[in-house]
Amino acid sequence: MPLPVPVLPEGVDPAWLPPAAFRAVGGRRTLIRGSGPPAETVHGEVAEACRRFGGRVVRDAQPGEGAYDLVLDLGGEGLGEEGFTCAREGGTTTVTATCGRGLLYGLFHVVRLGEAAFTGAWARETHRPALALRMLDHWDNVAVHPVMGQVERGYAGGSLFWEDGRARGDLERVRAYGRLLAACGINAVAVNNVNVHETEAHLLTDRIGEVAAIADVLRPYGVRTHLSVSFAAPVVLGGLPTADPLDEAVRGWWATATRRVYEAIPDFGGYVVKADSEGQPGPFAYGRSHADGANLLAAAVGPYGGTVHWRAFVYDHRQDWRDRTTDRARAAYDHFVPLDGEFAADAVLQVKHGPMDFQVREPVSPLIGAMPRTRLAVEVQVTQEYTGQQRHVCWLGPMWSEVLRFRHDPESSVGERARGGLVGVSNAGDDPFWTGHPLAQANLYTFGRLAWRPDAEPREVLDEWIGLTFPKAPERLSDGLHAVLDGSWRTYEKYTAPLGVGWMVQPGHHYGPNVDGYEYSPWGTYHFADRDGIGVDRSVATGTGYAGQYAKPWAELYESPGTCPDELLLFFHHVSYGHTLHSGKTVIQHIYDTHFEGVAEVEEARRVWAGLADLVEPGRHARVAERYEEQLRSAREWRDQINSYFFRKSGVPDERGRRVH
Amino acid sequence: MPLPVPVLPEGVDPAWLPPAAFRAVGGRRTLIRGSGPPAETVHGEVAEACRRFGGRVVRDAQPGEGAYDLVLDLGGEGLGEEGFTCAREGGTTTVTATCGRGLLYGLFHVVRLGEAAFTGAWARETHRPALALRMLDHWDNVAVHPVMGQVERGYAGGSLFWEDGRARGDLERVRAYGRLLAACGINAVAVNNVNVHETEAHLLTDRIGEVAAIADVLRPYGVRTHLSVSFAAPVVLGGLPTADPLDEAVRGWWATATRRVYEAIPDFGGYVVKADSEGQPGPFAYGRSHADGANLLAAAVGPYGGTVHWRAFVYDHRQDWRDRTTDRARAAYDHFVPLDGEFAADAVLQVKHGPMDFQVREPVSPLIGAMPRTRLAVEVQVTQEYTGQQRHVCWLGPMWSEVLRFRHDPESSVGERARGGLVGVSNAGDDPFWTGHPLAQANLYTFGRLAWRPDAEPREVLDEWIGLTFPKAPERLSDGLHAVLDGSWRTYEKYTAPLGVGWMVQPGHHYGPNVDGYEYSPWGTYHFADRDGIGVDRSVATGTGYAGQYAKPWAELYESPGTCPDELLLFFHHVSYGHTLHSGKTVIQHIYDTHFEGVAEVEEARRVWAGLADLVEPGRHARVAERYEEQLRSAREWRDQINSYFFRKSGVPDERGRRVH
Repeated sequence: MPLPVPVLPEGVDPAWLPPAAFRAVGGRRTLIRGSGPPAETVHGEVAEACRRFGGRVVRDAQPGEGAYDLVLDLGGEGLGEEGFTCAREGGTTTVTATCGRGLLYGLFHVVRLGEAAFTGAWARETHRPALALRMLDHWDNVAVHPVMGQVERGYAGGSLFWEDGRARGDLERVRAYGRLLAACGINAVAVNNVNVHETEAHLLTDRIGEVAAIADVLRPYGVRTHLSVSFAAPVVLGGLPTADPLDEAVRGWWATATRRVYEAIPDFGGYVVKADSEGQPGPFAYGRSHADGANLLAAAVGPYGGTVHWRAFVYDHRQDWRDRTTDRARAAYDHFVPLDGEFAADAVLQVKHGPMDFQVREPVSPLIGAMPRTRLAVEVQVTQEYTGQQRHVCWLGPMWSEVLRFRHDPESSVGERARGGLVGVSNAGDDPFWTGHPLAQANLYTFGRLAWRPDAEPREVLDEWIGLTFPKAPERLSDGLHAVLDGSWRTYEKYTAPLGVGWMVQPGHHYGPNVDGYEYSPWGTYHFADRDGIGVDRSVATGTGYAGQYAKPWAELYESPGTCPDELLLFFHHVSYGHTLHSGKTVIQHIYDTHFEGVAEVEEARRVWAGLADLVEPGRHARVAERYEEQLRSAREWRDQINSYFFRKSGVPDERGRRVH
Repeated sequence: MPLPVPVLPEGVDPAWLPPAAFRAVGGRRTLIRGSGPPAETVHGEVAEACRRFGGRVVRDAQPGEGAYDLVLDLGGEGLGEEGFTCAREGGTTTVTATCGRGLLYGLFHVVRLGEAAFTGAWARETHRPALALRMLDHWDNVAVHPVMGQVERGYAGGSLFWEDGRARGDLERVRAYGRLLAACGINAVAVNNVNVHETEAHLLTDRIGEVAAIADVLRPYGVRTHLSVSFAAPVVLGGLPTADPLDEAVRGWWATATRRVYEAIPDFGGYVVKADSEGQPGPFAYGRSHADGANLLAAAVGPYGGTVHWRAFVYDHRQDWRDRTTDRARAAYDHFVPLDGEFAADAVLQVKHGPMDFQVREPVSPLIGAMPRTRLAVEVQVTQEYTGQQRHVCWLGPMWSEVLRFRHDPESSVGERARGGLVGVSNAGDDPFWTGHPLAQANLYTFGRLAWRPDAEPREVLDEWIGLTFPKAPERLSDGLHAVLDGSWRTYEKYTAPLGVGWMVQPGHHYGPNVDGYEYSPWGTYHFADRDGIGVDRSVATGTGYAGQYAKPWAELYESPGTCPDELLLFFHHVSYGHTLHSGKTVIQHIYDTHFEGVAEVEEARRVWAGLADLVEPGRHARVAERYEEQLRSAREWRDQINSYFFRKSGVPDERGRRVH
């Protein structure tokens, strides 16, 4: 039975799967060969497209030469669970896959190609995901948290899964979400927050049925379901006196609990764990290592084909700002490198891409280059916690691409080292546009595609997204979207914290400027600005030694202000305001210039967007236009606060005499 | 029928009315003459004391010479509602009053005197309150507010009156509260927050019964009940299309609503209104003046003997920090002085003692000296919002006394100008010690006594409080309490914002340091520190002109940095860090010195308190000792953040070479 295409609730935006995106496929004659659930999903998609655009779909006949425009064939060999080939010859486009999920990805490949899929002829191409795990972590709470709300760091309405303490009854929207994820290549979702509060802890045991219901609707889209769990579950849920990972009763408790999970969800993906981090429980309480902790859970899920994702985000969040020797940036490396080789095969160490916490600019985490005997997953933040909270346009494709192409040493890039997968903190919610800001959909799409192919050109991914989201977009629209998106990350960087120093945000909610907001805090997040200069000395020679966590040539490059890249200068060095950058500007003049430029670029983007009104659906256009007003207000506030702060501190006037308050 | 003394719930501290405080009275023979509710309260008090200490009490017999040690006689003439006389002759102490409340105050006077009341002989003394209204405003919410909680700026547990949306069922604790208030002379209480939220608005109409129940238990202690109301009540509660104060239907609505209030509470005190302030509705929306607004409500309550307390806390809370011409300090004066003479007789303009908002140091509000034809009440904050939140010891008696003795001109002091009364924002809640910090009880007591006699010596009031709270305290305890309390306000000032500049607190909750916390905010609260200097120029010659709102000699004194008192220098002037104070120190050295001194003084106070362990009830001693740990931690944080901030900005090292981070 073909699986019906999900029906979106009234008013919900189809994102990158509007019906018109299926025009080329829907007007053709298609043959589908093979069976199993994903084949039914494929069939449902093609059938709906044909219903709309007049084509025809047939199941399981022998392909008669020329009789079909498109053959989707499950008869391939050796392509793995997710790979497919695509070729065109004699007027027929043929997609071949070994497994159903491959066929589904092949279909969406054809959809992306549009008319080009049915034009000319080309030799067989093989497509396989570079990373086997392409995962979204939802920081969704089941119960509304008194401080963090329904979705921690969520800027897109409520949760798709949970509402006010309960699972949503109607899962049609979750089905539609699964379909969007499949179309950009995402194959795993963790359905609850890594900060596991009291209510959420019970998902693992007595409330597993609610997770299973979600898993059931995501499965046909090739998306496996994962669960964040509390390391203290044996105590909190099981009533045991300890959660010690080496305790036999604890191991038994996890084994039993996990068996029950797999009874409910046979293809359950595994656990996500934030342990000994920002107040969450962990193995340190029992004098055990994080490898002990991760291996405990790996032993529970491994026999069923599951994985434990163990987060490396471990640092001292009760630091004393007076203490300049402790460096939060060092923490993940210092904690985990000694454990390399000790993690079980079914344990994945999930490492944030930078050493701090998703700032607009960070160096790539040295830990990623220093755990050759450990399966690593790299975590990025699709939700824009520190990058404008989906009120600002900030397309993160170029940043992620830089990270994924970074090479700690000549042997391999980050994308290649991420054997455990690429994980993104989701930016989606029950907002009609899914992501609050309609243009933030591009981040979700780009994340999925970069997880599939970390060396993809982000600009080409953006072209795909534009082609799907705005079918038949005239060149003016496509150019306009590129104009407002391509450079938006660097624009955001320009008007916020300069030269890699980070933070300078309002504490708590992290929106808007506050230069000293985290300066005297316990969070390990300092810029050390005084009347003479600014920045954190992380050199080996005179600083915290963090630069030495890199292999050559990076360790040497970062060690000296003379060779350190401008954009990371203040992350690695404390320099005077008069220090001259590679750009030829002084640090203080760079601060003034970039802040004026950043605001000017937002003004220009707003103008460009206004000029696209005739080409964009009115509701979407209006939503973006409104958010540009807020972005501009906020960017000006950033500019003025940062410029005033540094003028007051440095006493150096702007060379160009612009207004600094 | 004598009114029984309230029974405190198990574990609740008796504050300044422990049974032992009644020893002298309770061991004597007392005659009470007169009737009426307060006489029954007096009778109940004396009877309970006699039951405990073996004395005797008789009602309404003729006083036989020598037969009684104490005569409490309602037969006096011309002493007003609250006055009394006290004399001792021939072994009999005689208190005479005209009205019951006077007799009650006379009894507590005798209680305060203790054995001295029954020693020697003295001529008749007359006691009358200097201010007819001595009021506590409770910022208590009925429903728990999502941001502000049950009690806005409350640091003493929950509300005495309300819990989770409902009135408390058992009012015995409220009775005990009324008794404590009577014993320090407070005669009015507003039972809900001046920020009137949705639930609370209904107290005026359909929930007036809950207010009446509170009024019933406070009445025997001479305490009248007042209510904070929303200016928009005719719209919100009455369904009218407007709340325009000149609209006939609006006037009619208030008349009817008020008639019903008085049916429920015949001695209802009146309304408290925060209008056009921090988001509350007000007459500005209708193009009317604040006199129009206040007079509307005065006309409603006046015929019943009630008063409207109209707060003068009106300013622009959406200011642009870039705009240095707007000065929040000017706002109350600018708004209200033009209205002098326009307020009805039953309207009282309630003015905060300083022009900003209860900072540790502010000049006295110039508005208080500039409204001769208006009944003014002066508002102080007993709850320690900006003065340590009842985790720090900060006895505010000296500050209030300075304010009340301040003379805008030679004719009259603030205490004399406050014809409409002294109002304090309450610091009491359902905490077992009533005020969170046991020593904060002294603030509540001192407030009441200064309202009775604004020219009282605060140190003598503290002696009274010590005598009552710690009956038979040996000299070592009394000296110790003075040592930790007398200078605690100046200690707090030393380690927080310097030289009158104010703020530098964490935004929102206002606890702990954040030098720039309000610097780039819309609240009108700036220090303008740069690398050269700090302070707000409020002179007429070069600044905002605020200094010109004072009469001579203050206007001239404040106008020049050369004559401005040190402690207010940065409130009135922007000066360089090298500016020399009258003390002979530079501003920057003053900052360093006071911050080191402040912490040292807290360390010393903690040491003194520790030495009193054998003289103080263990539970109370432990609570205070715990809070000293937090005070010391917090004071060190203040010291280090402020010193570091100004060292980083000024580059001037501490002369004495102490550690600045």
